[in-house]
Amino acid sequence: MTDSNRIACNRLRSKVMSADDAARFIESGTTVGMSGFTGSGYPKAVPVALATRIDAEHDAGRPFRVRVWTGASTGPELDGALAKVDAIEFRLPYNSDPTVRDKINRGQMEYFDMHLSQVAPVAWQGFLGPLDTAVVEITAIRPDGSLVPSTSVGNNKTWLERASKVILEVNSWQNAALEGMHDIYYGTALPPHRSPIPLIRPDGRIGQPTLRVDPDKIVAIVETHAPDRNLPFSQPDEVAYAIAGHIIEFLQHEVKKGRLPHELLPLQSGVGNIPNAVLKGLLDAPFENMTSYTEVVQDGMLDLLETGKLRMASATAFSLSPDAAEKLNANLERFRNKIILRPQEISNHPEVIRRLGCIAMNGLIEADIYGNVNSTHVMGSRIQNGIGGSGDFARNAYVSIFMTPSTAKGGKISAIVPQCSHVDHINQDVQVIVTEYGLADLRGLSPKQRAETIIAKCAHPDYRPALADYFKRAREHSYGQHAPALLTESLSWHQRFIETGSMK
Amino acid sequence: MTDSNRIACNRLRSKVMSADDAARFIESGTTVGMSGFTGSGYPKAVPVALATRIDAEHDAGRPFRVRVWTGASTGPELDGALAKVDAIEFRLPYNSDPTVRDKINRGQMEYFDMHLSQVAPVAWQGFLGPLDTAVVEITAIRPDGSLVPSTSVGNNKTWLERASKVILEVNSWQNAALEGMHDIYYGTALPPHRSPIPLIRPDGRIGQPTLRVDPDKIVAIVETHAPDRNLPFSQPDEVAYAIAGHIIEFLQHEVKKGRLPHELLPLQSGVGNIPNAVLKGLLDAPFENMTSYTEVVQDGMLDLLETGKLRMASATAFSLSPDAAEKLNANLERFRNKIILRPQEISNHPEVIRRLGCIAMNGLIEADIYGNVNSTHVMGSRIQNGIGGSGDFARNAYVSIFMTPSTAKGGKISAIVPQCSHVDHINQDVQVIVTEYGLADLRGLSPKQRAETIIAKCAHPDYRPALADYFKRAREHSYGQHAPALLTESLSWHQRFIETGSMK
Repeated sequence: MTDSNRIACNRLRSKVMSADDAARFIESGTTVGMSGFTGSGYPKAVPVALATRIDAEHDAGRPFRVRVWTGASTGPELDGALAKVDAIEFRLPYNSDPTVRDKINRGQMEYFDMHLSQVAPVAWQGFLGPLDTAVVEITAIRPDGSLVPSTSVGNNKTWLERASKVILEVNSWQNAALEGMHDIYYGTALPPHRSPIPLIRPDGRIGQPTLRVDPDKIVAIVETHAPDRNLPFSQPDEVAYAIAGHIIEFLQHEVKKGRLPHELLPLQSGVGNIPNAVLKGLLDAPFENMTSYTEVVQDGMLDLLETGKLRMASATAFSLSPDAAEKLNANLERFRNKIILRPQEISNHPEVIRRLGCIAMNGLIEADIYGNVNSTHVMGSRIQNGIGGSGDFARNAYVSIFMTPSTAKGGKISAIVPQCSHVDHINQDVQVIVTEYGLADLRGLSPKQRAETIIAKCAHPDYRPALADYFKRAREHSYGQHAPALLTESLSWHQRFIETGSMK
Repeated sequence: MTDSNRIACNRLRSKVMSADDAARFIESGTTVGMSGFTGSGYPKAVPVALATRIDAEHDAGRPFRVRVWTGASTGPELDGALAKVDAIEFRLPYNSDPTVRDKINRGQMEYFDMHLSQVAPVAWQGFLGPLDTAVVEITAIRPDGSLVPSTSVGNNKTWLERASKVILEVNSWQNAALEGMHDIYYGTALPPHRSPIPLIRPDGRIGQPTLRVDPDKIVAIVETHAPDRNLPFSQPDEVAYAIAGHIIEFLQHEVKKGRLPHELLPLQSGVGNIPNAVLKGLLDAPFENMTSYTEVVQDGMLDLLETGKLRMASATAFSLSPDAAEKLNANLERFRNKIILRPQEISNHPEVIRRLGCIAMNGLIEADIYGNVNSTHVMGSRIQNGIGGSGDFARNAYVSIFMTPSTAKGGKISAIVPQCSHVDHINQDVQVIVTEYGLADLRGLSPKQRAETIIAKCAHPDYRPALADYFKRAREHSYGQHAPALLTESLSWHQRFIETGSMK
């Protein structure tokens, strides 16, 4: 049920072909820049066709692998399909696909886990090598050849500019009313020609609603009609609501102290059931006219937008449950004026994040007693997803909050450990840590003060005595007393989990 | 030999008094914001008088401690004098004083080690509490009451604005010709009122040459005539020159590849004999019209400015040897048009650093095989100095280089270790690591590729086999194979050093 009316530029109609034919333009050993960010706006047909082709090549004994660049995570028809046939040699910048994750953790795929704000600038910088092919999902082609973006913008502007060849997927499943929701900024440059990003409010528009592409580079256009990977979120549980409660209480306290305005500052929020619980909690909190400057628009934000508590949201992509996607689709005209989707180099730009003064709320895998945070490496060596945009936001936020249940795996893993097995966010970038047991406000505290606060406020009672005991003994026997540590046991909790299945 | 002509504002002359009298305005339990950045521009008299007063109070059995905020490191007359009498309860944001360091590492002083760009914004944000007194060294007071800054700007603008009481030290040792060298930007604000920092070139001027102060807040003016803490640098040795050679070769290669312009991009350089060796090496390198956008102007930069190879330098402070300070003083008129000193919130502003595309060159204590860097904590617990501005520059640089001799303590410590005992710079922010043995270009590499490169290029031959053996076994036995680790031994090198005095 594709819709050829979506291709309104007559001179480009001749490029329409099947996904199988389009996939033939991609050669082994080349680099492909794909659209897609947190499961939205990724190409649905060409990667599957490419996987089929590669599988056949492998069956014939011919090696065939590609290097894949994306916006962030995509969907099973892209990362999943390609990984299953061992088609990806190298992958950047963020992944949440289970097959890809498994390949990486078996040492069968090279993965370059980057700050999301830096992908486009680094692609321009050149040291990653050339970008051979862009495969980008769009909503429509306008009569003048400009492209209406899909449900994510990601790095599409850069892929279309940098690639030698362009393959477009025109997905008529995406609502045509998406047109006008995007703000594509064409003012970036390499130094010494960079100028200030002129965005001074989360609702500012500094670009144009469409993507440009050199029509001579378009080698194929594939018509599709397929939904995004919209996963249902698990409903927030008691733990999530307790965490949300602590955060809202903290924000109210900061407003009362005059350190945050009544409408707060632009909210950045990670994805998942805890961030959704926080957003749900904000429905009943005494803040009005809030704004959001974040990576993705998720379920909880749509609810806030509907009630008007959230005045507008800026992001680079949607990341919705099937129900929320349906609601959005049915009411797109109403939401369109309240949502702006930007390239990820703008949604995540440190310059803009610091200027706007975002309230950053991100998840974590573990935090240590000094407030260093591991967001990526389970037991120090196994990648979960990637750092994503958390570094862009945490370091530049007005308030940087990290939130987590105090334990994982049914209590067998403590989210608070003596020392992180890997560090993504240094203690300087971690101002507040929240679990269901409480909120540790670490701002202005020395390492030892941080340790006392985190152990008392955040640790699960089952692990609190062991953490307090470790800290006490470290204060007696550590080499230095700035951030006391016992190196023979600081990673022993992780080792115990590896050996016994529990940190206890 | 003070010079009362330096106080050209008549209505302020009545505030002149002795340092002892001035120090009486500072009360126990209060917070004092002092000038000073890398041993320049710090107050020389009032802190000593305060220390004397506090010592007497302690002798009389009365508790007396203060909270001290500075720009960065100061001098023995400030941090040293106060720490010796146990007068500092809390200290931020950076320290290199040995007595302070010792107090911190004995657990006798709380130290909040911050990104230097964030000190002023955080002071405005309010959660650190009020700033009671500012003690700021200046060069002169102009007839209109405006202040000519000294050899560092640091956070002085913010201290003068935020403090309830202001004590000025007018240091006539500082050259009166410093007037006009500074660029004090008064356009910062708290969100939601922040606007773009309008600096688009390292030589741009966006502010005014003087500091403002509300005259009603001035409680004391002290006349001094004393030099900055100018420490001689140790001459670069063979190791330093080898490191410099690798870096210059790398920069030439990048220019040849078209990835850097012929005049390079603005240089940021840490302090010490290795950075000085790099700057010396640049004297003979084929780059012309270079610029610098950095924290401090050090000896090597003056040489480059003199020859014209370096067109101009932007910083927040000087950090010179006595010889270089004398040279500067004798030729200040000539250097004045080539040097701009700014507040550290501008010299280190992530927005500006990323826009200009700095080439960042910083030192380290240790790097691990995956390219995470520890800049601060010896053996994971003992603070050396602090993170300073290295995080501001490394994360936002166009190319982020870290450099170090491959060993320390006569070969007993390897700068390359299986796992960092503390992390200040995550692998995403570490693009190039250099030792005397070679340069590891880590850009675009996955963790395992980084490990192979770092071990082969950077490790000392005495430690290379042990690192390669660790990595090989980690590839066999690690929990995950993204960044293989053996947690029972990843910190054992540090523990061995603590126990035996050697990592071998």
